[in-house]
Amino acid sequence: MIVFLNGKFVPESGAVVSVFDRGFLYGDALFEGLLVTRGRPFRWHEHMERLQRGVDFLKLTVPFSSAELLRHALRLVEQNKMPECILRLSITRGITERGYSPKNATRPAVVMTLHPSPVIDKMPCWRVVTSSFRLLGNDPLADFKTANKLPQVMARAEADAAGAQEAILLNHQGRLAEGTTSNLFWIKDKALFTPALPDGALPGVTRGVVLDLCVKMNIKCKERKARPIELLKADGAFLTMTSMGIVAIESLDGRKLGQSPLVKKLWSEYRSLLETS
Amino acid sequence: MIVFLNGKFVPESGAVVSVFDRGFLYGDALFEGLLVTRGRPFRWHEHMERLQRGVDFLKLTVPFSSAELLRHALRLVEQNKMPECILRLSITRGITERGYSPKNATRPAVVMTLHPSPVIDKMPCWRVVTSSFRLLGNDPLADFKTANKLPQVMARAEADAAGAQEAILLNHQGRLAEGTTSNLFWIKDKALFTPALPDGALPGVTRGVVLDLCVKMNIKCKERKARPIELLKADGAFLTMTSMGIVAIESLDGRKLGQSPLVKKLWSEYRSLLETS
Repeated sequence: MIVFLNGKFVPESGAVVSVFDRGFLYGDALFEGLLVTRGRPFRWHEHMERLQRGVDFLKLTVPFSSAELLRHALRLVEQNKMPECILRLSITRGITERGYSPKNATRPAVVMTLHPSPVIDKMPCWRVVTSSFRLLGNDPLADFKTANKLPQVMARAEADAAGAQEAILLNHQGRLAEGTTSNLFWIKDKALFTPALPDGALPGVTRGVVLDLCVKMNIKCKERKARPIELLKADGAFLTMTSMGIVAIESLDGRKLGQSPLVKKLWSEYRSLLETS
Repeated sequence: MIVFLNGKFVPESGAVVSVFDRGFLYGDALFEGLLVTRGRPFRWHEHMERLQRGVDFLKLTVPFSSAELLRHALRLVEQNKMPECILRLSITRGITERGYSPKNATRPAVVMTLHPSPVIDKMPCWRVVTSSFRLLGNDPLADFKTANKLPQVMARAEADAAGAQEAILLNHQGRLAEGTTSNLFWIKDKALFTPALPDGALPGVTRGVVLDLCVKMNIKCKERKARPIELLKADGAFLTMTSMGIVAIESLDGRKLGQSPLVKKLWSEYRSLLETS
């Protein structure tokens, strides 16, 4: 496996960062995970927009333009002969004196790695649990993908322990926020609902694709401040994420959810979009 | 500078971790910062207790015992000829397949680095601001030092921008939690107060030392759920942290705070404790 590291293409064994890098010390870094299909990253610009929002907010320095990153990403995919994969891009603040102050950072790390992507031939359907870990609502840091992901790691461990594939995180007010690596949607009376971003949801790229599909398919979709009970009363529910696209929710905490045919319809539309992109 | 890395003593340039390490990817790691004085880490066991709580909670694997780590720490201090310094110890979960699931992690990284410690000849007195970033109250992850520190980094950047030396973080309910790298105390009518841990404060080792000093000096000290207004009405306030010990607060958001002589008294007691430990 070849890794992109600060402008160079290096073997996995040489893909290392300094122990003084603030990404390693404090999670003072951003990342994006992109689906690569037929050798091209899907929705590159949407991912780069979110990354740029984070870069601006955290005041990171990125020594490559988006166009340069894309060129390097394409070369990485080619070198590894992985036209179907997941691409992870990380950008750290780099190195400073000891302490939290981000002043005078130097040597940001820019890393791209490739990972196997799941083979999907029919709509996946997952068991989901509600995590005991909470997210902060109205969190400005939830607007992009930071490398502070311990609540998600712990929630995912709870899913693993319960034999589930994903965990839903509530915010500090007990309202639905998101899955560890996914956004959440549910269906009631032929309309779609999804948690409002201020409730702690990351604005996922696949979430955006589904919102666009709703417009195209003339389906009503609303953001909603909601509690888990709404999922149990829904006609169906699903998750959206880069790696898998759309995933139906089979059950929440062991209770079967409705299985609206609309989920399958959206899944098919999403698959066509991917195949013709 | 020599760095301790997974059982080896390596030069700074070779002190690197894999870009696949989850400490780097997600902040899936713990750390401790210790004050080394006269060649010995101060309150080693208290730091190790907190670290162990985190290790148990996150289910990390540490390939060294506390006694082995101490032996390596002492050797590191000696090799670097830095009997007065700050020692940082980091422990990561190591490497897994892509994704948040912590299952089947291998190759945890254990790193120790040394950093200059501040020279303190009189009681420091800091300008402090209130951060706009909030912490989650009742957060089980606030019971130890995780490598998820972006709120602290951003709060510290706000302090830098305001020409202050530290920022206080409130929790989501608007109550006092802690400084970015410090615990908070205030004095009212000769009694000490400090935020209750469930309000988001990390149980700092120096905080614990001050609580012990209060018992010894027969000073009342209570945990308190409190809002910033209490600091403005207090007779004095101070911060506690490993690197600096006790630091008086001069002002909060530009408003001068009371300067109780009790702060100086505690500072002197703390300094004697350090010098005779």
